[in-house]
Amino acid sequence: MLNELGVVRISTQERALMENLERLSSNSGSHSPSLATMQQSLPEIQIDIDACFLSNPLATELFWSYFNADVLADQQLFKRMLEAYPSQNRVIAEELSSAIGVDPGRLFIANGATEAIQAIIHNFSSHIHINIPTFSPYYEFAGTDHRVTKFQVDVEKEFVLDPEQYVQSVLRSGADTAVLISPNNPDGYLIPDDDLSWILSRLSGLRTVIVDESFVHFADRAGSGAGGEVNGLPTLVGLTDRFDNVTVIKSMSKDFGIAGIRAGYAIMKKSRVNRLLDHGYLWNTSGMAEYFFSLFARPIFLNEYRTVLDTYRGYIDRFTSMTAGASFVRAYPTSANFQLMQLPNGISADVVTTLLLIRHGVYVRACGDKIGLDGEFIRVAIRTEPENKIVFAALKDVLS
Amino acid sequence: MLNELGVVRISTQERALMENLERLSSNSGSHSPSLATMQQSLPEIQIDIDACFLSNPLATELFWSYFNADVLADQQLFKRMLEAYPSQNRVIAEELSSAIGVDPGRLFIANGATEAIQAIIHNFSSHIHINIPTFSPYYEFAGTDHRVTKFQVDVEKEFVLDPEQYVQSVLRSGADTAVLISPNNPDGYLIPDDDLSWILSRLSGLRTVIVDESFVHFADRAGSGAGGEVNGLPTLVGLTDRFDNVTVIKSMSKDFGIAGIRAGYAIMKKSRVNRLLDHGYLWNTSGMAEYFFSLFARPIFLNEYRTVLDTYRGYIDRFTSMTAGASFVRAYPTSANFQLMQLPNGISADVVTTLLLIRHGVYVRACGDKIGLDGEFIRVAIRTEPENKIVFAALKDVLS
Repeated sequence: MLNELGVVRISTQERALMENLERLSSNSGSHSPSLATMQQSLPEIQIDIDACFLSNPLATELFWSYFNADVLADQQLFKRMLEAYPSQNRVIAEELSSAIGVDPGRLFIANGATEAIQAIIHNFSSHIHINIPTFSPYYEFAGTDHRVTKFQVDVEKEFVLDPEQYVQSVLRSGADTAVLISPNNPDGYLIPDDDLSWILSRLSGLRTVIVDESFVHFADRAGSGAGGEVNGLPTLVGLTDRFDNVTVIKSMSKDFGIAGIRAGYAIMKKSRVNRLLDHGYLWNTSGMAEYFFSLFARPIFLNEYRTVLDTYRGYIDRFTSMTAGASFVRAYPTSANFQLMQLPNGISADVVTTLLLIRHGVYVRACGDKIGLDGEFIRVAIRTEPENKIVFAALKDVLS
Repeated sequence: MLNELGVVRISTQERALMENLERLSSNSGSHSPSLATMQQSLPEIQIDIDACFLSNPLATELFWSYFNADVLADQQLFKRMLEAYPSQNRVIAEELSSAIGVDPGRLFIANGATEAIQAIIHNFSSHIHINIPTFSPYYEFAGTDHRVTKFQVDVEKEFVLDPEQYVQSVLRSGADTAVLISPNNPDGYLIPDDDLSWILSRLSGLRTVIVDESFVHFADRAGSGAGGEVNGLPTLVGLTDRFDNVTVIKSMSKDFGIAGIRAGYAIMKKSRVNRLLDHGYLWNTSGMAEYFFSLFARPIFLNEYRTVLDTYRGYIDRFTSMTAGASFVRAYPTSANFQLMQLPNGISADVVTTLLLIRHGVYVRACGDKIGLDGEFIRVAIRTEPENKIVFAALKDVLS
């Protein structure tokens, strides 16, 4: 049947499931329902591939192998890790500082990057200027005492950030805080080094500039915009040396594949770390997260991680090569581990998402709730090679 | 040798260790260095019993047995718990609400009670009135934009809170926020139900009254002040129904013995939970903490927990009976799982703490940094029966 939902044919049963899915999504706000929530609420749907979830699966396996050898093999140690208070923020910062190449006094250890985002917005910001589309906590965490203004990134120009237009927009807004995510979520655009330096030099009068590098490990290191390197990993952390108002935020969930542990950090000037730690964040790291941070500080682990990351980047390259040649969808270039795709005219992202789920067990992110994205978009996470092939075939089947 | 540190004899070697310990303690601010930090920094000291750590060891064992059966036995499930995003705050509140007997809309799930304390002080308080001695985050988390005023609890009256004097002190201070910990840390005094109700009715004009019940499970249920019961466990949560400005805070670390997981919650009016969750705390619960909360919501687990708690309360009773008869130290009555002890005139808490460590491997809390405690005090956590006997013998040996 051809219906009002677009040019895709769907059955009555599929339509019923679609309505259930929509209800579930609207209950989850601006974040997708998790795999667990989906499976609990809609047991009739089998999810084989979670291409909504932005995470390097090879890194999860690497973490798991270390965790097995170090912790699961020593049950007393593990039990003690769950029983005892973890170390305080500054103790962990001390251990981690050399791995990420900063003075420990400038390192704020967070219960996931979202805690760092919240801390910075609530403490060092009153009017925040965001680029749209963006990661929603950057505006959701702004309270009633905050203003939020927006810069619309140009979809037609493949999300390339025009430095001059952007700086003008920030300064005109009167904001005291600007947010740059590079590579950006949901489009994967990486701001070239020269552009980023130029932007930050023009924004040096702002109180706070957040640079979120949660996806920077996935950026092409031979490319023009992955910043410097520390321990062989791309990072923008050096910017905090040059610009006093810059805070670099990093999630560990995506690159290290450990979202359930809740680990992240932010780098900022010392006086700000002091202000945060003097009045809170006493034991915000769990024993598991402390173990992860200790692993991150081990050269042998980082060495293996770099290998795993290279392999995964190969997967990303092969997936994006496939989608680049696809006639049935417009896939945008990406420097992250996901790809934003625009659907052909008249096809609804909700319908496509549902059909991918029902017919192929593939869960992708419909972007209907992403402000700043007009039109119908989906975001597809890049997973293992066999999974990526299934995802591509499923997209082709549903959209052709 | 007899020296300026008091009437206790110590050797040169002991004195050197004492200086190292003092340095370590002063680096840890107003919290004791953790066992791990101690062992790392002072490998020459062997800690056999951690009587600094306020935790029911039997509950840790119970948790561990469930965790083994549910999670460690299913490695794929466990890996997924570490890999995937946990549920959002409201989803966990929904699951937990019946176990603690409140509407899910009034339940704020926290990454440990300290996160809840921080959230409430930073959002719903500007001038906080504390009782001293107290748990230090209640004043440390007050920022530069807060005022802190104090009510000195009467040590001579064994820390009994005089309701009239207390209420007068709060109202005279002009504070918008008052904090009552019951049983109180570090003295273990439980405010009788009638006193607490009377106090709260007099303080109904305040913006916020925090009632911290982190130690309430250890209170004698036959006694006069353990509030109501939910699922057979003492709780003061019913107060939030009667008093709109009351927030009940609860740590899970002490009673359930899982400080390393970071789990706690606060109960407050719905509009406040909304205000917190609308602008933060998106994924503040780890996969492990989510598992713990799901366990807490299972009647079969709670049933076993009550048994374990009863056994542990027996340990508490036997330990406090021993110390009550001791001539070498003044041990205060307690309704918690620790006991505050005042040392005889001229004996230093730092010296006693060090000697307990060096000579007996027993780690207790010196209270020199606790404001509102004049004189020399130590706080001793109550552990298993064999450990408690060793602790008592060690105290007797050092102090006699």
